[in-house]
Amino acid sequence: MNGRLYGVGVGPGDPELMTLKAVRLIQENHVVAFPGTVPQETIAYRIAIQAVPELAQKELVPIPMPMTHDRQEMEANHQRGARLLESYLEQGKNVLFLTLGDPSIYSTFTYVQRIVEQHGYSTAMVSGIPSFCAAAASINTPLVQWNEQLHVIPGVHSLKEELPVSGNYVLMKSGKKMKQVKDILAARKRTVIMVENASMEHEHIYRGLEEIPDDAGYYSLMIAKESPIDSDTQK
Amino acid sequence: MNGRLYGVGVGPGDPELMTLKAVRLIQENHVVAFPGTVPQETIAYRIAIQAVPELAQKELVPIPMPMTHDRQEMEANHQRGARLLESYLEQGKNVLFLTLGDPSIYSTFTYVQRIVEQHGYSTAMVSGIPSFCAAAASINTPLVQWNEQLHVIPGVHSLKEELPVSGNYVLMKSGKKMKQVKDILAARKRTVIMVENASMEHEHIYRGLEEIPDDAGYYSLMIAKESPIDSDTQK
Repeated sequence: MNGRLYGVGVGPGDPELMTLKAVRLIQENHVVAFPGTVPQETIAYRIAIQAVPELAQKELVPIPMPMTHDRQEMEANHQRGARLLESYLEQGKNVLFLTLGDPSIYSTFTYVQRIVEQHGYSTAMVSGIPSFCAAAASINTPLVQWNEQLHVIPGVHSLKEELPVSGNYVLMKSGKKMKQVKDILAARKRTVIMVENASMEHEHIYRGLEEIPDDAGYYSLMIAKESPIDSDTQK
Repeated sequence: MNGRLYGVGVGPGDPELMTLKAVRLIQENHVVAFPGTVPQETIAYRIAIQAVPELAQKELVPIPMPMTHDRQEMEANHQRGARLLESYLEQGKNVLFLTLGDPSIYSTFTYVQRIVEQHGYSTAMVSGIPSFCAAAASINTPLVQWNEQLHVIPGVHSLKEELPVSGNYVLMKSGKKMKQVKDILAARKRTVIMVENASMEHEHIYRGLEEIPDDAGYYSLMIAKESPIDSDTQK
């Protein structure tokens, strides 16, 4: 019988935010894949190894996912990654593909998962804490209350023309377009807080648009609320 | 020194989806509060007791939060709950307020937290897996990929006039207005799946608007995507 491919969320950074299920699956299985060329250098590995030291003894499989805007090249990478994962599944071994945050939210796992499914193999997702929940906890503020809407918006592409009128925003992956994003949010008069590396070692919180630098790291995340952010005074 | 109030997410239902941090905090502290009149009957208790049997020996504090649309009555309940929590904090004891899902997303915790903070006590949030991540895992489908937007929308109030044009929706707490929500989604031509009690014992998945009943439970959650939901064929 073929093995099963699991997309396992390791959460946002703090190893204690891993779930009991993620820990158990790593302990019980032998093949663990990582999005990157050197497993030990991926963020997912660095998080998981702190909670599950046995990980170091596993068969660690690199799935290279170089950043590219060439769709064909990207598809070729995903196909190659899927084939490598399938070679283990065919041996009857389960494969855990560790992914930062939650596997259902902007995870590279889902691109290879789709191919592996199309090839007839069984897959599953194991939820992890999304980075925006960790960022909210870092600033000790709710993302949404009552009937507020929550809009999670990646990058600046979609931001310009159709930003929803009401509700709170989580802006992810704004990185290089930060200046542009800041201008839009200033016009919207939102209360904005940016969290860099939420729950990780070098976490940093920027309060207000004037504090937020125009060049932000890839793991920066902005929370922009309709109402003032006021419950973080004790932090 | 006063104790600290922690809002601790216990995740969506499966006790294995609790974090290592939630488990450790319950083991290390003695006062645990629950939103409800009988702690042992709350969903948060039923989840946590399965992962941390020691919970049964703790001091279990009920924080009654009866459903009401009367804002003044609700505020009075929150004030009363906050005062009770503070009576423990004043004794130098930490209090863990267990909450379903994640404490930053529509959690009753944040209402009492705000009051407790205003009274000068220290509080913190401990992230949990949100129900919509568990629902995505249940149907084995990504919530968002690439540059898709994710809109989390509670109830039907805000749905009618300003539903965002693009992106995927998570519709929560639609319960009594289900018929109305279904009509709106039909007009939008979305692929819709409803998950009842995601990751819990009586989980049920409804595929397509025609399968979704007009009367749905409170813990039902709909995922409505722009693109076809097709990666769940192996489930």
